[in-house]
Amino acid sequence: MATKRPTIYDVAQAAGVSKSLVSLVLQGSPRVGEGSRKAVEAAIVELGYRPSRAAANLAAGRTRVVGVLIDDYTNLWFVDLVRGLHAALGPRGYRLSVVDVATDGQAEDPIDSFLSMRVDGMVVGMDPPRALSGAGLPPIVVAGTRELPEGVAAFDRVANDDAEGGRLVARHLVDLGHRRLGHLAAAGGAARARREAFVAQARDLGAAVAGTDWVGAATDEAGYLGTMELLRADPEITGIFAANDVMAVGALAAAREVGREVPGGLSVVGYDDTSLAASRLVSLTTVNDLSFDVGREAGALLLRRMRGESGPVARIVLPPSMTLRATTATPAVTGSAAAR
Amino acid sequence: MATKRPTIYDVAQAAGVSKSLVSLVLQGSPRVGEGSRKAVEAAIVELGYRPSRAAANLAAGRTRVVGVLIDDYTNLWFVDLVRGLHAALGPRGYRLSVVDVATDGQAEDPIDSFLSMRVDGMVVGMDPPRALSGAGLPPIVVAGTRELPEGVAAFDRVANDDAEGGRLVARHLVDLGHRRLGHLAAAGGAARARREAFVAQARDLGAAVAGTDWVGAATDEAGYLGTMELLRADPEITGIFAANDVMAVGALAAAREVGREVPGGLSVVGYDDTSLAASRLVSLTTVNDLSFDVGREAGALLLRRMRGESGPVARIVLPPSMTLRATTATPAVTGSAAAR
Repeated sequence: MATKRPTIYDVAQAAGVSKSLVSLVLQGSPRVGEGSRKAVEAAIVELGYRPSRAAANLAAGRTRVVGVLIDDYTNLWFVDLVRGLHAALGPRGYRLSVVDVATDGQAEDPIDSFLSMRVDGMVVGMDPPRALSGAGLPPIVVAGTRELPEGVAAFDRVANDDAEGGRLVARHLVDLGHRRLGHLAAAGGAARARREAFVAQARDLGAAVAGTDWVGAATDEAGYLGTMELLRADPEITGIFAANDVMAVGALAAAREVGREVPGGLSVVGYDDTSLAASRLVSLTTVNDLSFDVGREAGALLLRRMRGESGPVARIVLPPSMTLRATTATPAVTGSAAAR
Repeated sequence: MATKRPTIYDVAQAAGVSKSLVSLVLQGSPRVGEGSRKAVEAAIVELGYRPSRAAANLAAGRTRVVGVLIDDYTNLWFVDLVRGLHAALGPRGYRLSVVDVATDGQAEDPIDSFLSMRVDGMVVGMDPPRALSGAGLPPIVVAGTRELPEGVAAFDRVANDDAEGGRLVARHLVDLGHRRLGHLAAAGGAARARREAFVAQARDLGAAVAGTDWVGAATDEAGYLGTMELLRADPEITGIFAANDVMAVGALAAAREVGREVPGGLSVVGYDDTSLAASRLVSLTTVNDLSFDVGREAGALLLRRMRGESGPVARIVLPPSMTLRATTATPAVTGSAAAR
């Protein structure tokens, strides 16, 4: 499959610089001025140039691989994160290696794994499984709202504002006329931030919230079981906020099973705005947590650290928004009538 | 998070061998006898021992990383494959690095990427993007039915029998009483094998098949659009076989949109038996293609090659089976009446 690819010479010519300078830009050298770097980057994008990394990196002792650590491949929120990371890092010749802890559950330590791969940087998209400290760690950016162990070094962090997201959901449901709500939380820092803000905001607005101490796995099955439990305990509930889209899909299955038509008989809201939520079959009202943008910003921060920039620790918080689809509406009847 | 972990000395003691022999087993050395290896492996499993690989591998110039190449993270069939690979490779200290081509679409060549990561082996879970030949390639196992470029070296291959899977679907639908079927194929070798066998078997059994030259992306949206097209062209269709679960979910959405109740008004069958098919909301009749077992067998083959065993090229074909759920039934009425 020999397709004609642009060479480094083509890039140098298009940018009006020397081949050596293109090399320096590709290596992320801080010795290149901003103007030249931009010209080279523009030429790279325009020509669709891709460096032949394997040889160059072996020579330079770098892998140009960034490790991405996530919870579980089946929870699709990570896909947009990875795409955003790729948008920031791909044009600079970096590749991503995504590892999920659900699959590797029995293994020792995914951080060690990345170290043995000699990654140039890491993106942590889950509550880190251990303290991120010690010698030999590459630059790390934490993506999403995460609970970090005490007393570790500060890391650059990028997340959507999960507390604001929780408040958006409470306002949306109360605005629609819901007064008895249920919540299904997942484990982890992001879910905790969503829950606390959702519950506080809903109560401020005069709604009751059940299930505030319920915490389950981020799976379809947990969402199903949690919803069955909530509706059994309080059939008056007319709206449920699940901590993520995959649990919300379980809630939809539970609603169907107990004969609560969505959205009139039961409204359901997820979080993450994954491809699953957007699918026509599910068409889930959810919170867009800007995972693509979180990934892109995290990638940009990581790039600067991998280039050797020190500078203060960054903390970027992006504003989430509601994505309204087919699973929320004004309650058709009060909960108990709907439950019948 | 300092948890007490078993050491290599504990393993040696439990297995009744020397520490050096445990090391040799961990390195996959062919110099270890079968009996000693089994004793050490049993002790490793029993104690939950995990070698501290980072240091050992850096010293040995190996990464103990296996690269896994797939099409698209959002098509969840790969999750079971990866879990099976992990079951075979994890206990031997190998880590997996999963890369999808959908995300990395703009990048040069995922094979080069794995080379720059210095992977010890590769598993190719898609039609390979280029000829898998040339110097410096590590051992490779092809997982799934793939179209390989002509004239390349032969690789070990593990797949479910996609042709048999296609025939199973045809028999299932015809047995239920369907006589007018539609098919939605995806690109790639596996989908082609499924389609050809499905169409031939259905026709042998006296059923008509529409859509035999339709090929779309392995996405929800393509499945939706394809189904709308099939049902517009031939409203008498009572059963649809989609090349994979994610397309089948799109077919379910289309059925709902045109008022065909599933399964009475339209039966839908997928392929892969993913977590999406098993979810309570979707509850899709599908073909179990044994992705976990394919992964485990592929991992075992790769392990032997990485140990340096030559031996003849292996070709393992596993028998798929139907997983019957809620989306297939005897047609309630003829297609045209159902379509009203």
